[in-house]
Amino acid sequence: MIEISLVRHVKVAGAPALYGSTDVMPSIEENKLLLTNLTAFQQQGNAYDLVITSPLKRCRIVAKLFAEQNKTPLQCIDTLQEINFGDFDGIPFDDASFSIGTALGAKHWAMLERFWQSPATATLPQAESLADFNLRIVSAWSELIESCYKQSDGVDRPKRILLLAHGGVIRIILAQILQLDWQNPVLHQSLQIANASVSQITVTRPFEKSDLNHYQVNFIGLPVVNTP
Amino acid sequence: MIEISLVRHVKVAGAPALYGSTDVMPSIEENKLLLTNLTAFQQQGNAYDLVITSPLKRCRIVAKLFAEQNKTPLQCIDTLQEINFGDFDGIPFDDASFSIGTALGAKHWAMLERFWQSPATATLPQAESLADFNLRIVSAWSELIESCYKQSDGVDRPKRILLLAHGGVIRIILAQILQLDWQNPVLHQSLQIANASVSQITVTRPFEKSDLNHYQVNFIGLPVVNTP
Repeated sequence: MIEISLVRHVKVAGAPALYGSTDVMPSIEENKLLLTNLTAFQQQGNAYDLVITSPLKRCRIVAKLFAEQNKTPLQCIDTLQEINFGDFDGIPFDDASFSIGTALGAKHWAMLERFWQSPATATLPQAESLADFNLRIVSAWSELIESCYKQSDGVDRPKRILLLAHGGVIRIILAQILQLDWQNPVLHQSLQIANASVSQITVTRPFEKSDLNHYQVNFIGLPVVNTP
Repeated sequence: MIEISLVRHVKVAGAPALYGSTDVMPSIEENKLLLTNLTAFQQQGNAYDLVITSPLKRCRIVAKLFAEQNKTPLQCIDTLQEINFGDFDGIPFDDASFSIGTALGAKHWAMLERFWQSPATATLPQAESLADFNLRIVSAWSELIESCYKQSDGVDRPKRILLLAHGGVIRIILAQILQLDWQNPVLHQSLQIANASVSQITVTRPFEKSDLNHYQVNFIGLPVVNTP
């Protein structure tokens, strides 16, 4: 059996923007709180056997601190990083290119609106498509589970994994497990994965690629840090 | 704006069985804990304006206690009760009719297995079909939201509702909001709604029947009572 806690990073220390591939810093204060509260959360069960993180700082910094503090092995998986929002990635919404009342600003806001209404078809300029992103995350997730399952063989208690990742990544993993339609915009618009929240998954039976019923989603978006 | 906390009842005080329409008692001890913890949960935000409950005792008892204690209006909605499992409803699995090694027992377990694998098509004997159940809950939910929206008109803070209901009911409501396929067995098999857990929904814009994007699912299955 494998238990996986999918933790979304804390809020970022940057101006409001689409942050995907941009390696923005997390809030230092909230990261401290997250570290403390993840330790408390861990103590409700067995210790984590492995910490896995996206390579981006908003996940990696707290993952590394947690791993060091708890003497837990740490693994960074590059393919678990957030979707790449292309030309708009990391550009603050108060930048001139989003200026309301200009032709360029109006054009860019219309692109964002189309993307929001239909993320599967309205790919932003130079961005990763939702289809590519979905494929990347589903592949990384399958490899991860297969590898963990092999390692857990013969171990008589659940293997526990802490995974630090992004909102989009966690949503795609949940969609894969629950067989939800990743192309449905409502999934992306309405299922909140809050900053510093945990979603918990249990893999209860041997890994078989064709059979997803061995997965249980225990809860989604449990707040670990109560931000005011 | 409306905020709704969907709370599943505590574990029941009955032998292992399918409990749908059967009006089984809840665990008294756990109900006490749920009452205490719901009060603590309420204090993280504004007080609830309304408590709504399924008519069944495992929901209604704690809903009534909470409403009395907090002087909150209480409304019982009959159509929010759990799916009716027909001839098998409330029959303990250690009853003679499920006895392994008998022809009758084998037949009944095979029916349960078919229902588990395909709840939308393999209706149990004399049971409510999943399609009828889905329609009943979706209708009750729409009426409830419409009625709450009318009442919240002109109120300058969110209307907060505490809804005591069942695992199947909460899953159907979430499926409706997130536009998930209620016929997909994986949804019913893999999305756990634990006893004594809260799932939180926010309705952020005026009610329009054709547009579900006004809903946000804040979290799913947050444990309110940590049962050992």
